[in-house]
Amino acid sequence: MAKPRVCLAYSGGLDTSCILRWLIEEGYDVVCFLANVGQEEDWAAVEAKALKIGAVKMVIEDLREEFITELCFPAIQCNAIYEGRYLLGTSLARPVIARAQMRAAQRENCQYVSHGATGKGNDQVRFELAFYAIQPSIKIIAPWRDPKFFNRFAGRNDLLDYAAQTGIPVTSTKAKPWSMDSNSAHCSYEAGVLEDPNHTPPADMWTMTADPMTAPNEPTDITIHFQQGVPTKVVTPGQEFTNPVELFNALNKIGFNHGIGRIDIVENRFIGLKSRGCYDSPAMTILRSAHLDLEGLVLDGQVRSLRDQFVTHNWSTLLYNGYYFSPEREFLENSLTFSQKRVNGEVRVRCYKGNAYILGRSSSTEKLYDAEEASMDSLQDFAPTDTTGFIAISSIRLKKYGLQKAEEGESLSRA
Amino acid sequence: MAKPRVCLAYSGGLDTSCILRWLIEEGYDVVCFLANVGQEEDWAAVEAKALKIGAVKMVIEDLREEFITELCFPAIQCNAIYEGRYLLGTSLARPVIARAQMRAAQRENCQYVSHGATGKGNDQVRFELAFYAIQPSIKIIAPWRDPKFFNRFAGRNDLLDYAAQTGIPVTSTKAKPWSMDSNSAHCSYEAGVLEDPNHTPPADMWTMTADPMTAPNEPTDITIHFQQGVPTKVVTPGQEFTNPVELFNALNKIGFNHGIGRIDIVENRFIGLKSRGCYDSPAMTILRSAHLDLEGLVLDGQVRSLRDQFVTHNWSTLLYNGYYFSPEREFLENSLTFSQKRVNGEVRVRCYKGNAYILGRSSSTEKLYDAEEASMDSLQDFAPTDTTGFIAISSIRLKKYGLQKAEEGESLSRA
Amino acid sequence: MAKPRVCLAYSGGLDTSCILRWLIEEGYDVVCFLANVGQEEDWAAVEAKALKIGAVKMVIEDLREEFITELCFPAIQCNAIYEGRYLLGTSLARPVIARAQMRAAQRENCQYVSHGATGKGNDQVRFELAFYAIQPSIKIIAPWRDPKFFNRFAGRNDLLDYAAQTGIPVTSTKAKPWSMDSNSAHCSYEAGVLEDPNHTPPADMWTMTADPMTAPNEPTDITIHFQQGVPTKVVTPGQEFTNPVELFNALNKIGFNHGIGRIDIVENRFIGLKSRGCYDSPAMTILRSAHLDLEGLVLDGQVRSLRDQFVTHNWSTLLYNGYYFSPEREFLENSLTFSQKRVNGEVRVRCYKGNAYILGRSSSTEKLYDAEEASMDSLQDFAPTDTTGFIAISSIRLKKYGLQKAEEGESLSRA
Amino acid sequence: MAKPRVCLAYSGGLDTSCILRWLIEEGYDVVCFLANVGQEEDWAAVEAKALKIGAVKMVIEDLREEFITELCFPAIQCNAIYEGRYLLGTSLARPVIARAQMRAAQRENCQYVSHGATGKGNDQVRFELAFYAIQPSIKIIAPWRDPKFFNRFAGRNDLLDYAAQTGIPVTSTKAKPWSMDSNSAHCSYEAGVLEDPNHTPPADMWTMTADPMTAPNEPTDITIHFQQGVPTKVVTPGQEFTNPVELFNALNKIGFNHGIGRIDIVENRFIGLKSRGCYDSPAMTILRSAHLDLEGLVLDGQVRSLRDQFVTHNWSTLLYNGYYFSPEREFLENSLTFSQKRVNGEVRVRCYKGNAYILGRSSSTEKLYDAEEASMDSLQDFAPTDTTGFIAISSIRLKKYGLQKAEEGESLSRA
Repeated sequence: MAKPRVCLAYSGGLDTSCILRWLIEEGYDVVCFLANVGQEEDWAAVEAKALKIGAVKMVIEDLREEFITELCFPAIQCNAIYEGRYLLGTSLARPVIARAQMRAAQRENCQYVSHGATGKGNDQVRFELAFYAIQPSIKIIAPWRDPKFFNRFAGRNDLLDYAAQTGIPVTSTKAKPWSMDSNSAHCSYEAGVLEDPNHTPPADMWTMTADPMTAPNEPTDITIHFQQGVPTKVVTPGQEFTNPVELFNALNKIGFNHGIGRIDIVENRFIGLKSRGCYDSPAMTILRSAHLDLEGLVLDGQVRSLRDQFVTHNWSTLLYNGYYFSPEREFLENSLTFSQKRVNGEVRVRCYKGNAYILGRSSSTEKLYDAEEASMDSLQDFAPTDTTGFIAISSIRLKKYGLQKAEEGESLSRA
Repeated sequence: MAKPRVCLAYSGGLDTSCILRWLIEEGYDVVCFLANVGQEEDWAAVEAKALKIGAVKMVIEDLREEFITELCFPAIQCNAIYEGRYLLGTSLARPVIARAQMRAAQRENCQYVSHGATGKGNDQVRFELAFYAIQPSIKIIAPWRDPKFFNRFAGRNDLLDYAAQTGIPVTSTKAKPWSMDSNSAHCSYEAGVLEDPNHTPPADMWTMTADPMTAPNEPTDITIHFQQGVPTKVVTPGQEFTNPVELFNALNKIGFNHGIGRIDIVENRFIGLKSRGCYDSPAMTILRSAHLDLEGLVLDGQVRSLRDQFVTHNWSTLLYNGYYFSPEREFLENSLTFSQKRVNGEVRVRCYKGNAYILGRSSSTEKLYDAEEASMDSLQDFAPTDTTGFIAISSIRLKKYGLQKAEEGESLSRA
Repeated sequence: MAKPRVCLAYSGGLDTSCILRWLIEEGYDVVCFLANVGQEEDWAAVEAKALKIGAVKMVIEDLREEFITELCFPAIQCNAIYEGRYLLGTSLARPVIARAQMRAAQRENCQYVSHGATGKGNDQVRFELAFYAIQPSIKIIAPWRDPKFFNRFAGRNDLLDYAAQTGIPVTSTKAKPWSMDSNSAHCSYEAGVLEDPNHTPPADMWTMTADPMTAPNEPTDITIHFQQGVPTKVVTPGQEFTNPVELFNALNKIGFNHGIGRIDIVENRFIGLKSRGCYDSPAMTILRSAHLDLEGLVLDGQVRSLRDQFVTHNWSTLLYNGYYFSPEREFLENSLTFSQKRVNGEVRVRCYKGNAYILGRSSSTEKLYDAEEASMDSLQDFAPTDTTGFIAISSIRLKKYGLQKAEEGESLSRA
Repeated sequence: MAKPRVCLAYSGGLDTSCILRWLIEEGYDVVCFLANVGQEEDWAAVEAKALKIGAVKMVIEDLREEFITELCFPAIQCNAIYEGRYLLGTSLARPVIARAQMRAAQRENCQYVSHGATGKGNDQVRFELAFYAIQPSIKIIAPWRDPKFFNRFAGRNDLLDYAAQTGIPVTSTKAKPWSMDSNSAHCSYEAGVLEDPNHTPPADMWTMTADPMTAPNEPTDITIHFQQGVPTKVVTPGQEFTNPVELFNALNKIGFNHGIGRIDIVENRFIGLKSRGCYDSPAMTILRSAHLDLEGLVLDGQVRSLRDQFVTHNWSTLLYNGYYFSPEREFLENSLTFSQKRVNGEVRVRCYKGNAYILGRSSSTEKLYDAEEASMDSLQDFAPTDTTGFIAISSIRLKKYGLQKAEEGESLSRA
């Protein structure tokens, strides 16, 4: 009888290497899967390692364009941000990775998928909700939540022992005292010494941003063009980028140089725990600032207000919690897409010492801003007396409030 | 018969000086009022000028503490921000100014209040809605919306002519090609050359922040203590500040040095026009960053989410639009106050070249964050298998969504 | 030189007849416009009267289908309701009327439009915001806000005198002690004796509903079919209706017989005044109940929650306030439309003595409800132990809350 | 060594009787707990049965006043409703029951609490989240999710066999083909034949409402007085009630007679399943209608709008999902309480054939409604021309929208 087949998200690291071997021991044929979402990796080495340990196959897929255009750009369109700070770099990558892993599982006739995410984090939820939505019948093996596995491998030393016993190659480099995960949108740092929320991250931790303290004294001025809220061209001194991946990489490089996009926060995980995370997101930070700025020029104020309160807030929360493949995300995105139809124009940005300063913005097609009309000196378009009526009507309710307060003996004129 | 009395918001500038003289011509006794909300001013010169022009009295009130504790601190408590960028500096000052002006009007037996705000801006609305709420029976004279006035004074030259004719002293300094308004929370810059949204503000425009390009190469590290969401102590190298006004001034000074808190935006005014504004808000920017950060450590995640979506969004919009004195603002503030009860702790901040970086945060009283519990390595508190159940239940809806999509022939696994 | 031309919303009543004559006196050529949105009217008599008074033309347009399919059906799709009670009958009619009047004005080369709405109500706002959005250059004449008109015609007697002087025919029937406005969606009653909010409306006031006290003792059971949230078929005992207008009329008739859809409320007008209104809306009430019920069966719970909070609330408010022709309404409707894609099925309704009781609902295409799965007795699909995990994870935050309360000396176990 | 002690929610029915015996078999001392939240019960018989089966003690507590004043009245204050229909009767009772059971557990030194709620429903979640919040260290035994229990008792027959073997008395009356749960707020009916959502509930199912078809032909007119949004007096023909429990009972009786408050819905359970439920809630339905009506008269429109969108929606969802003891519920309730300060007045209601019609409302203390001011005929307070200005300003954005649409070739004047 054929062995059951499992498609394992495999990174080449100690954890997933041990999981790979353990799954084989448990009687599975294992197809390893690794997504290229922009991280640095020795792809051939990962493949060789997987096969050496005993994988029946190693599938590596380049998802960079898919990731940037289908996830990062919609995030920019809605100015996505979690708890006022986090640009969702990890959350954005999970849906494309899960989807591609499931495609691989289906191609390779796997009845199971597996991953090395731990039992307290967000990633397990994001991966598994995605798996279940994409293929409701899929069976999931989560070793870090399986007593057979986690009781056997109680800590890193157990894994190292197991690797030594089973001939899994272990890189001799000393592990960093925190864990990292990177893609085109960001690199995340958490756990280890970072678990003390008052421990300032060491200067050498950050990988996608130079230290603002030592960043160049000369700024870099760039121009970012948007069509329907999507960045379509980036002009840097001497170059232009229009391909989504290249444009993104260019911004990551400039942002790296100038140390743009570092945050250090304590966030609320979906499962109700608080955790400390540090993130550097150069391209996303620059793009979000520029997009937010352009919307000021071209987006109707009431649409913006409703979009901010409902779409931005909820879309960000849904992505963070792993609900990309959900009817509610699709529901929200219909209105989002409409809101971006006229978000066309360009924004000039100065990158310098950790900041992306807006230098100016313009649009050749959009007309909602009208310098003449906004001018305090200009008296056409509407009569100043109109505003008197506007205020009179708007104050009807407030006068009653004032009378009510007076009646309650609580004067609004007191400090 | 006694002349009608009007209490005029008087700044000593050309506009309100002409309005003062014009009101006198129109038959009013004019009490001038000027609030000290932290701006730089030659108070004695303003008083002398008002009296010289013919005011029956000049009232100057120091509202700095009232402004900071009653408006700026609540804004910090709710992380107030308008359209994702603007920290509301002008909007926050208007309620305390209007309230004090109304108190002065009442003390001085004025049946009228007047101001020099123009007919297209937000300030006229903010002042007048406040006046009407505080004293519903008050009569308002808004010369820039009164045809008798604005038809006579069509531009700056007409005002200069009138000043010359009526002996109003005019400072010989050339007017800036933009208008400014400052208080402890910020300085705003708008109109004039700034009406072109693609015109980068000149380096010498900013008054409350040094240029980040020439800011010191040495950072300043400070610690900000909060109690119930309110900043209660700022520790700088060598000094401590606990008095609200001193604490605020200290942060403004540090923020000035390091060029922190500049923004340049196109915003949506209440009356439906877009306008371009530049603002520098050093203390508010530092405080908001620190407060936002501390909430990550100590505020429940669901309270935060509801507060962000409802209170933060609506409180900010209400303040921007001039609805401080409204039942809906009071309604929102009841929940806000509750949310801040446990926002106690301290945040370490590094000020450097335009940025306020968070170095760490801690709380001796709050326990929602628990390093041990959040640790990926720790397995106490709840079983890893619990998360399996959590995901299984959470995916019930999503599996149905996946089946529905498949039935519609739209595979969720396709990119 | 050609006279200026104005397109007047003309009802044939005393007010608009006087306005028609007055506009002619003021030097305008007047094209009268009357929309058929389902009200009872002697159309030929209105036309004859307009021409007799001096209109250059009388335009009457049948907008019933447009009204029902473009406004009433979307209202049903989003369960529109204002302040928890009002089904928006008047608000829904205004956009189609304003749009058709503007089309008439354009065809007839009118530079002006005019209407007889009073200066304190919602309708003036709804009409004029629509006019301005549809043709921003249009000029509006609102006689009840024009001192030339309202100072001359201070009350009904002045209008009667003017009618007598100028030969305007006045119907001898005594005016009702309230004002009414009807269309296919409802009839409204306000003003006059109804201004006392404690005055119970007289039994003979209601026109679109029989008195529930004297309604038949035999119920009528019907079935309403929906496709994508839109009613597509109504099956009554012995008949079927699929044409939108006929279907709507049939429900109005059944609702009339059984006295369904009366409300009596005090509502908050857009301009900030409270007013008392009574409305009977038979078809809309039945349709809304049925649609709401069907959504229970077929709409995803999270989509429903977001739609209720976001689209239903705001769409209803926008319509009430006159913002149908606005970017924010269009923004919301994109998500609404998506939410209705699977709202397919049928609902059985019993009409009886003022109520539309739901008897049952079913859908041949939608599968979100699964009797087997929801059954308490069935144990397939997910393990009961999964729920233990779900609760364990969901309680993490709450345990901390409990500890915090205990620490504050405030036991949650005390009543 | 002392046996472990468990406090079991015990109803006297087959399920909890078997659970009681099973817990004893498992080695526990069992304290039974039963709350009186207004349901009909032979309290002495339940106690006798518990002791006969082997409980060490039976605790019965009268929570009716606590239930009505602490849960039902706040629900009325916020017009609580779930998914537009359900008045939350079961959800409201759970917090007071769980709290009293936990008090009993603490008094009786129980380390465990237990209940008979099934593994797919909402009640298990509501009870357990409450238990954990009130006493984070409590241990919960949920037999219907414990394989040892549910594998042994696969269906009703297994329970009957066990009862026969162990001498548990079983009432000979045939079980109803649905399950019921009642309290002062409502009676719920679900499962069994009701699982077919198209199966109309039999006429004899309803227990708290007479059939509207056979209800009296004579209406009952009553007056309900509210102070701060709380019902404080009910005047019926010939009687007055001011005690909360008596007032509630009186409304339940009147509502019963006139068949008021039946609903039949498919709802979305917290865990993501849809289920069909029928509920009759006479007092709650009458009170909610009256409260909603009074708010029209006395509550500021903007406060109402924010409260509806923010508090009503979220409070209802939180209660439904079992989050009464949560920081977010407490957060919301602070603003709710403020909103009700001026909800003072009385509402006249006619109860007749399934409906609670509003006859009128008044307030001797509140003044927001002003008949004179709202009158179309009155021209004081504000000038009609003010509205012209209001509309002019409000249309600025819309004119731009119209121009944009025209530019896109999409005329707003087309149907």
